[in-house]
Amino acid sequence: MLNTAWRQVLTLGEFDLIKRFFTPANYSSDVLLGVGDDAAVLAVPQHCRLVAAVDTVVEGVHFPVKTSAADIAYRALAVNLSDMAAMGAQPRWFTLSLSMPQADEQWISEFSVGLSRLAARFSVQLVGGDTVKGPLSISIQILGLVDKDQWLTRSGAKPGDLIFVSGALGEAAGGLQLLLKPDLHASLEHRQYLLERFYHPTPRVELGLRLKLVASSAMDVSDGLLTDLRKLCAASHCGADLQLDSLPHSKPMNSVFGAAGAEHLALHGGDDYELLFTVPADDVVALQDIMTETGVPCTEIGRITRNGGVQCYRSQDAVVVEEGGYDHFAVVN
Amino acid sequence: MLNTAWRQVLTLGEFDLIKRFFTPANYSSDVLLGVGDDAAVLAVPQHCRLVAAVDTVVEGVHFPVKTSAADIAYRALAVNLSDMAAMGAQPRWFTLSLSMPQADEQWISEFSVGLSRLAARFSVQLVGGDTVKGPLSISIQILGLVDKDQWLTRSGAKPGDLIFVSGALGEAAGGLQLLLKPDLHASLEHRQYLLERFYHPTPRVELGLRLKLVASSAMDVSDGLLTDLRKLCAASHCGADLQLDSLPHSKPMNSVFGAAGAEHLALHGGDDYELLFTVPADDVVALQDIMTETGVPCTEIGRITRNGGVQCYRSQDAVVVEEGGYDHFAVVN
Repeated sequence: MLNTAWRQVLTLGEFDLIKRFFTPANYSSDVLLGVGDDAAVLAVPQHCRLVAAVDTVVEGVHFPVKTSAADIAYRALAVNLSDMAAMGAQPRWFTLSLSMPQADEQWISEFSVGLSRLAARFSVQLVGGDTVKGPLSISIQILGLVDKDQWLTRSGAKPGDLIFVSGALGEAAGGLQLLLKPDLHASLEHRQYLLERFYHPTPRVELGLRLKLVASSAMDVSDGLLTDLRKLCAASHCGADLQLDSLPHSKPMNSVFGAAGAEHLALHGGDDYELLFTVPADDVVALQDIMTETGVPCTEIGRITRNGGVQCYRSQDAVVVEEGGYDHFAVVN
Repeated sequence: MLNTAWRQVLTLGEFDLIKRFFTPANYSSDVLLGVGDDAAVLAVPQHCRLVAAVDTVVEGVHFPVKTSAADIAYRALAVNLSDMAAMGAQPRWFTLSLSMPQADEQWISEFSVGLSRLAARFSVQLVGGDTVKGPLSISIQILGLVDKDQWLTRSGAKPGDLIFVSGALGEAAGGLQLLLKPDLHASLEHRQYLLERFYHPTPRVELGLRLKLVASSAMDVSDGLLTDLRKLCAASHCGADLQLDSLPHSKPMNSVFGAAGAEHLALHGGDDYELLFTVPADDVVALQDIMTETGVPCTEIGRITRNGGVQCYRSQDAVVVEEGGYDHFAVVN
């Protein structure tokens, strides 16, 4: 049976709950009807295409139990913003489906503040949603815009294209390791840095918008570099040579996990939400300008090949990398 | 810990799972990029506005445990189609977020068949989605189109407008009662009819599209007539006089539940997904034509008033109706 506290929330009505906690103070003029009706009505500019994605995060699968409401909100929206970044799209609107085991207004309030803060930073607006009773999970559907015929896909890589990744890899997984293993030795500074990278990965929206001009393919790294590079190769019907020595991993990662541990996490760790993309050799100079202008470092880590599969190299030598898929993580209590 | 069977599904990758079971055989030309990338790319015609809604259904809250996969798929999509109907929108595309406790390919296959069947009937296309491990719940975001400046809202009712409802009310709740109380006496024919109404409510999409020309306000009846009429009145800053004698309830309802029981379910039962709408008195003739052309009976059940609140009448007498909110239902095992 539904418990009494929950009944009181249900009595508010799903729209009332969404309306009360999540209605933006102001909508931009492209929101013709926002939260509060059976659906939102939105104006898509004539020269644009609509880009739509959905991503759900579940407690114990995509974030540890006891993660703060604001941090959960951040992750739920950030993973969707990252999908827009991977398409080279400008995120504009989103809907929220919030499943909660019990009514907790304090929690909802903190969640809505965290959500609003990230939404404001990326100029994306909540236009609808529902709340249901159930285990804690958040499903966000994001809508963005691209100019006609200007979007990035996973399927455009060509043999000879250079492979790049933004930022550093494995840091979110490194932060998670610190959460899971409190005995791991790390300086306060490194600990804080890596936890921040786990809780608040930066969606590379600005970079994605600029990459449209130079990249032949792109996707975001959510399941680990090796897994995601294989997906990109499969979609593009090609293969890749990956230079392990070139993988970007930072001083905190090397310090806490050693070079081998940092490499393992860079290859297999998920949740970094960096962009993995390919650039024709002739366009690398233009990429340099984009890096300078966006302030996002991008590292060349390999080259697209004709034959299928990903081959790893250390210096000049082909090496076999042990498998290590990333299930985000096993349930953490 | 995640179990092994689930790991195997996760290894498929969420996109692979969605791609394998849910990719439509053919996309129409407005789907520029469908399932399989970080997001879908869609073409919105110049003269149209985009209409977006999300609705989530959870096992034990919106459908009983042991409901068939195909019936769950039907409900998950139908409630979203009903939101489009309430807006007078033509549904076009949807994304799916599917949370399942364990990998069960047979179940997914049956679910996808049920989903595809309803999607084809309403010419709506699945363009993306994800799968996550968790309790059984399905979140669908639906996207539809309306001509510029032609959509229905809850907020347009004016004093003097007549209140209508499509179809018959309380039948889905009646079907649910039969599921919950196997001892209830009902003929096989009535039982089948009411269970069908519970499992397969008809989204009134065609009616909604036509109502745009005559209705001053509209919404779908998902939480029970009385609750939803109050929401419509609140959104329109008005009240309503509701004629209990006029409520449409069918022969099977009267037969199984008696006149009083049928009335109670008509007032408080949810999940019928009929349309509740208001029409200026001058436009009632035009509504008659719409009823004839769509084949959907609509019944006048009252009138919008200036003062707030919903007042019920039996014949000429004001009556107080006992409260009876509809929590879809308490958990059913």
